[in-house]
Amino acid sequence: MQGIAIAPAHQRGLADRYQRVRALSERLAQPLELEDCVAQSMPDASPVKWHLAHTTWFFETFVLRRVERNFRVYREGWAYLFNSYYEAEGQRIARDQRGLITRPTMAEVIDYRHATDERIERWLALDVAPRWALALLELGLHHEEQHQELLLTDVQHLLAQNPLAPRYVKTTVAESAEPERRFIAHVGGLVSIGHEGRGFSFDNEHPCHEAYLGPFEVADWLVTNGEYRAFIEDGGYRRPELWLSDGWALARREGWEKPLYWLERDGEWRRFSLHGELALDMNAPVCHVSYYEADAYARWAGARLPSEAEWETLAREEDGNPQLLDLGTFVPVTKAGAQGLFGSAWNWTSSAYAPYPGFSPASGAIGEYNGKFMVNQLVLRGGSCFTPQGHVRATYRNFFHPHQRWQVSGIRLARDKRSASLS
Amino acid sequence: MQGIAIAPAHQRGLADRYQRVRALSERLAQPLELEDCVAQSMPDASPVKWHLAHTTWFFETFVLRRVERNFRVYREGWAYLFNSYYEAEGQRIARDQRGLITRPTMAEVIDYRHATDERIERWLALDVAPRWALALLELGLHHEEQHQELLLTDVQHLLAQNPLAPRYVKTTVAESAEPERRFIAHVGGLVSIGHEGRGFSFDNEHPCHEAYLGPFEVADWLVTNGEYRAFIEDGGYRRPELWLSDGWALARREGWEKPLYWLERDGEWRRFSLHGELALDMNAPVCHVSYYEADAYARWAGARLPSEAEWETLAREEDGNPQLLDLGTFVPVTKAGAQGLFGSAWNWTSSAYAPYPGFSPASGAIGEYNGKFMVNQLVLRGGSCFTPQGHVRATYRNFFHPHQRWQVSGIRLARDKRSASLS
Amino acid sequence: MQGIAIAPAHQRGLADRYQRVRALSERLAQPLELEDCVAQSMPDASPVKWHLAHTTWFFETFVLRRVERNFRVYREGWAYLFNSYYEAEGQRIARDQRGLITRPTMAEVIDYRHATDERIERWLALDVAPRWALALLELGLHHEEQHQELLLTDVQHLLAQNPLAPRYVKTTVAESAEPERRFIAHVGGLVSIGHEGRGFSFDNEHPCHEAYLGPFEVADWLVTNGEYRAFIEDGGYRRPELWLSDGWALARREGWEKPLYWLERDGEWRRFSLHGELALDMNAPVCHVSYYEADAYARWAGARLPSEAEWETLAREEDGNPQLLDLGTFVPVTKAGAQGLFGSAWNWTSSAYAPYPGFSPASGAIGEYNGKFMVNQLVLRGGSCFTPQGHVRATYRNFFHPHQRWQVSGIRLARDKRSASLS
Amino acid sequence: MQGIAIAPAHQRGLADRYQRVRALSERLAQPLELEDCVAQSMPDASPVKWHLAHTTWFFETFVLRRVERNFRVYREGWAYLFNSYYEAEGQRIARDQRGLITRPTMAEVIDYRHATDERIERWLALDVAPRWALALLELGLHHEEQHQELLLTDVQHLLAQNPLAPRYVKTTVAESAEPERRFIAHVGGLVSIGHEGRGFSFDNEHPCHEAYLGPFEVADWLVTNGEYRAFIEDGGYRRPELWLSDGWALARREGWEKPLYWLERDGEWRRFSLHGELALDMNAPVCHVSYYEADAYARWAGARLPSEAEWETLAREEDGNPQLLDLGTFVPVTKAGAQGLFGSAWNWTSSAYAPYPGFSPASGAIGEYNGKFMVNQLVLRGGSCFTPQGHVRATYRNFFHPHQRWQVSGIRLARDKRSASLS
Repeated sequence: MQGIAIAPAHQRGLADRYQRVRALSERLAQPLELEDCVAQSMPDASPVKWHLAHTTWFFETFVLRRVERNFRVYREGWAYLFNSYYEAEGQRIARDQRGLITRPTMAEVIDYRHATDERIERWLALDVAPRWALALLELGLHHEEQHQELLLTDVQHLLAQNPLAPRYVKTTVAESAEPERRFIAHVGGLVSIGHEGRGFSFDNEHPCHEAYLGPFEVADWLVTNGEYRAFIEDGGYRRPELWLSDGWALARREGWEKPLYWLERDGEWRRFSLHGELALDMNAPVCHVSYYEADAYARWAGARLPSEAEWETLAREEDGNPQLLDLGTFVPVTKAGAQGLFGSAWNWTSSAYAPYPGFSPASGAIGEYNGKFMVNQLVLRGGSCFTPQGHVRATYRNFFHPHQRWQVSGIRLARDKRSASLS
Repeated sequence: MQGIAIAPAHQRGLADRYQRVRALSERLAQPLELEDCVAQSMPDASPVKWHLAHTTWFFETFVLRRVERNFRVYREGWAYLFNSYYEAEGQRIARDQRGLITRPTMAEVIDYRHATDERIERWLALDVAPRWALALLELGLHHEEQHQELLLTDVQHLLAQNPLAPRYVKTTVAESAEPERRFIAHVGGLVSIGHEGRGFSFDNEHPCHEAYLGPFEVADWLVTNGEYRAFIEDGGYRRPELWLSDGWALARREGWEKPLYWLERDGEWRRFSLHGELALDMNAPVCHVSYYEADAYARWAGARLPSEAEWETLAREEDGNPQLLDLGTFVPVTKAGAQGLFGSAWNWTSSAYAPYPGFSPASGAIGEYNGKFMVNQLVLRGGSCFTPQGHVRATYRNFFHPHQRWQVSGIRLARDKRSASLS
Repeated sequence: MQGIAIAPAHQRGLADRYQRVRALSERLAQPLELEDCVAQSMPDASPVKWHLAHTTWFFETFVLRRVERNFRVYREGWAYLFNSYYEAEGQRIARDQRGLITRPTMAEVIDYRHATDERIERWLALDVAPRWALALLELGLHHEEQHQELLLTDVQHLLAQNPLAPRYVKTTVAESAEPERRFIAHVGGLVSIGHEGRGFSFDNEHPCHEAYLGPFEVADWLVTNGEYRAFIEDGGYRRPELWLSDGWALARREGWEKPLYWLERDGEWRRFSLHGELALDMNAPVCHVSYYEADAYARWAGARLPSEAEWETLAREEDGNPQLLDLGTFVPVTKAGAQGLFGSAWNWTSSAYAPYPGFSPASGAIGEYNGKFMVNQLVLRGGSCFTPQGHVRATYRNFFHPHQRWQVSGIRLARDKRSASLS
Repeated sequence: MQGIAIAPAHQRGLADRYQRVRALSERLAQPLELEDCVAQSMPDASPVKWHLAHTTWFFETFVLRRVERNFRVYREGWAYLFNSYYEAEGQRIARDQRGLITRPTMAEVIDYRHATDERIERWLALDVAPRWALALLELGLHHEEQHQELLLTDVQHLLAQNPLAPRYVKTTVAESAEPERRFIAHVGGLVSIGHEGRGFSFDNEHPCHEAYLGPFEVADWLVTNGEYRAFIEDGGYRRPELWLSDGWALARREGWEKPLYWLERDGEWRRFSLHGELALDMNAPVCHVSYYEADAYARWAGARLPSEAEWETLAREEDGNPQLLDLGTFVPVTKAGAQGLFGSAWNWTSSAYAPYPGFSPASGAIGEYNGKFMVNQLVLRGGSCFTPQGHVRATYRNFFHPHQRWQVSGIRLARDKRSASLS
């Protein structure tokens, strides 16, 4: 929450934004059957009902409890169910048991949401909100946007378990253009990394600091399904020299031979998506690959993944029109012309998720938001077609474990820049 | 299905019974929220929705497919979802994934039930049903009754995972009488075991055969919660000499210190049930104990568990009024006066579940019903307060693994009879 | 130990036998390298060094401690290492950690053996040994014989892990004769089961009691490698209808396609043995099959496994010359002529290992010898080519879990006898 | 191996060094019993016999096979046993099965060593060794030194499993001085990181490159047992706010409450070591802590761990007398006066193990030496009392997973430097 500077005049804007963000979460659940909202398909994923309740618990706990006179919890016992990982907020059910909590029902959770919204809105309607409280509210909105993306990735994973291959939406998907395969070069040197100045940011984007980079170049396009298929056909999943050791062991153990959600049916490559099963668009960006696969692909292609500092350095310049969440298309698409660094699919970077020099988390439970996860994960940048509009920025740091594949994670290549000419 | 002899006149009776059994299954689901019908709390348990669909699949597959001209499956792909364990009927989803199958929805499953019921009833309304087909129908009804009991045990297990301790019913439970502690003696000798004559029976009750027993006696009462508490207080869970080795290892590993669903709150013993949390009635039969616990208790009490042959020999004489499923009381209760061998809680016997001498299963998929489970399990006898009326009989053999506790399984003591006087 | 009646005059004979048994254990270790004596290849197996020490601990703990004045343990702390499973004797290292205990060294263990032998022999040289103490000594000898067989099965398992396929012995193996395939019939009726009268027996062979059998017949030969190969070639490992459900699941999970130690090399079937790799002798008895495989084979062959009562009833009549341990041949061999029921390979029976009616174990630690394992296991009868001479008898009950394959366990068929003619 | 420049004149020096390094490995095994050389106490550790054979296989495979005319492998089948992780060199036994390979025996492995040494020495005695081959030989020596340290850490882990707490050496340990608690400051700025110029280095120390650092200071002393005890007594293992989330979960699951090898006996803190059990010297450096513990301690102490760039920047200036392997003392000791950055115990850094910008591994199997492990691990710097003399240097990068504790890994604090005065 560093760097938050909310002028008193923004309070009304924040109230509007609160309504829009909260409404979007419920809208995302609308195409689902009630049954779909209860199940948890793996420990990394959560039920839709849980997402809707947990984001509400966040506002109740971190905002209302601190600003309401005579605050009372909405229901005794629910904090135990809807606290995700905040040790300072007490015990909670094991992460992999969330699908067993059939009560409160979906209807009760929706009531919880609306009751909480009313309380927040009543409070915001007063003139007296302190800046720190508005900052927590803003944090809660960004938090909810993160859960909107997770809700979609988790629903996709759940529906993918069902051999009937149910669809979340019935819309059709436009065909991808073939990307121009162009690299964007940078001379390197001392660059400034991290967030500063105005606008919201998470604590892990701070402090802004200097870093030194050699000359490099980063691809303007995301690796396509077609390119990735060539990697597979060239034995990519059978050549240990392309892989990190941990990745190779995992891929053998799990029998990986293709990205998550790809399937071969009658000799044709297809993929499961929120649109149901689709023919694989060979010009569209590949996604649902792990870090291990992204890294192996890059090695095969004679390139490497960008570092997060390289990515951010180029992204600061960018002024594009990325493919973010639009409720119509739930797969990455390659548009015509220059692609830019944002949107479509998250970019695995080569950077371990670590604190920036001088980083210190907030005190109290909110300090657990990001800092305690700074080990064993890799940074991803740029957002995806599941990321809500306005959520991502050049300094934004997403992070997942190297084996995880259920996010909309793709591959962008980078290279050391040795000569002056573009590749 | 041996021993089935359905006179043509019974066809109408069977149609009535079909309607009653099928209606009961849906009625058992009625107190639940839709959310409760989707979740699977452990691999041994199944979602309510799955029980309702699987029992329907059974009629569709084993009856309709064989008797309907121009038979067509109700929906392509559903057999994969709703086949439980019949290898001869093809592949099926892993048992522990049933809770992830959110489609078809509950409403679609109910439609499936009703459409199937119509087809069955239309067929039964004709005069021409062959005897073997009626026998399969009858088998399907007994199969569905077994799933009615499982539905209740599985719901109880699911609701028990929820720290909010939701209730399935709101009725109150009558207090138990203190049982008379009386043993029923038998002189032993050559006895006849297994089913013969009229009425339905499962294949595992056949063939009827001779067995030799020494003199023995079996308790008229089920071990009570109070008696079991004395075992706990005497260190029953801390004294390895009372336990089978596998049971002791399991109890240490899992930290068992009391029956499943017991809890101590503010120094008072309570138990979770379909009525929610109840104070522990010290005169009521203990239940939700594993074979290991039943066996250890019996050793502690200076007794043993009955063999299934002993139990059956006495049960053949009995003409009682057992506590079976009545939709009002979902915990075992000790009534005043003689108890008899049936009802309240299943009796763990000391008998491994094995084929009777000369046993041969039916050919085809139906032969998988019982025979292939005849290893690693123990026989239970007598039925419980979750067992539908009319379902159980003296020759009925239920069976579970020795570590399983989520069934309504209790303890009945037996002893070798050495002197003429009753204990 | 029931039924033991040792006349004072037998004390000298017992001393001789003590020396012979103890010497054999050390002799069995002689062909091994020191390195082979340390390792533990799986939790079910134990290092040779451990077997040699544990059997010594048994005499120290159950005999010397009770009969020596001023008894002192040989070394403090060793009981923790060499107690196998006697809860009454205190804590012990986890079973699967035995291979990590590199000290005491083998030389120290041999010293321990010899020091203990001296103490035992000194005590036996006195006239005053009480009968109960001699009974414990005798039990210790039978216990050590059981460990002699285990030592060999465990060494075979260990050496089998080594791709260099080291040999325990260099002797050659005689070719098997083709067995006459003859069944031995019995009319059934009331039979007497269990040990009575003179000679040593384990507590699990008691009490002698009556059982009722239908007419049956049991094969005079053990199923051969050639017969078992025919089962494999007929799809035995791919046809679920032949298998118990637990066995089928296990065989799929573990990828079983043949008995343990079989391998196919250049299209020829071979087997690993204590003689190293051997061509598979098609007339020799198949061994190293689990109960699941034995049961599936029998079903495929249109037969079944014998019950332990059937086996014992026929074995009581037998006066043969079985293939037991002879230090020259460490694989089962089919001799010419009638085979009889004993030796070559243990016979899986269809009987769950359970207490005989009226069974009660000894009090104290010795009561843990057999009784606490009476669940989840199946009885095997008859001994094997690894069983020391004189160790096995008609009433002897060996027992293992149905999935275990590393013992010399084979298959004997049985059938209900319906007509008077032999098959 | 980059940066290797071996002048022809150095060939003789290399031959001497070869003899010394090879002799040290065998000398380290000398205090052990043969039994100790066979066992593997966990998958991360290897048997002594395996270390001795694997390091020999390395010379055979990467040197002799390439330089000997008419090269023949020493024994067929051994590569399968003694290849560690080189995919390009073919299949190998699973890492956790190394303790089951009892043959070849220790004596055979020693013969293998000596025969290989002879071949290497014969080759070195010729004048014609090409530079690349000498570079591989040199790599083999550094590789063997790494295994010397592992041999000791693995022996310590093995002996620690034995409740008899056997000693590797009987020498006594000098008492530690109390360290001066002084920080060494650095103004930061653009620094040069990685190896360049003369002398051996591993590929992961390349290429030398620029990095930018803020002002910082690093402790001259390693955190002591006494300081760590204060952390424990202040609830260090019970306060989640001090821990990374993955570390907290692991510590709960495994019941961590103190460093590996610490034990409390009669209220006194002790530690197991290669000297057997020792009283805990409160001034000696704490070791056998995981990254998670090091990081939690630093947070508790109001400091942080140094980055590897910070550490290296200061270490380049150092000219000390560190405590490395001396065959007399096998625990870290604090000497009087300034400590310096090297020796005693490896320093966990905050840096994820990653390729330096522009890193490229060698081609072929040797390229697997370091590069494929560059994920999921943290860098450690400085060497320990188990590290052979001359092995470590300022640019040396050791790496382990954050949960691993069996190495001699300790804690050095660092801080951002905000003011000009020393702390």
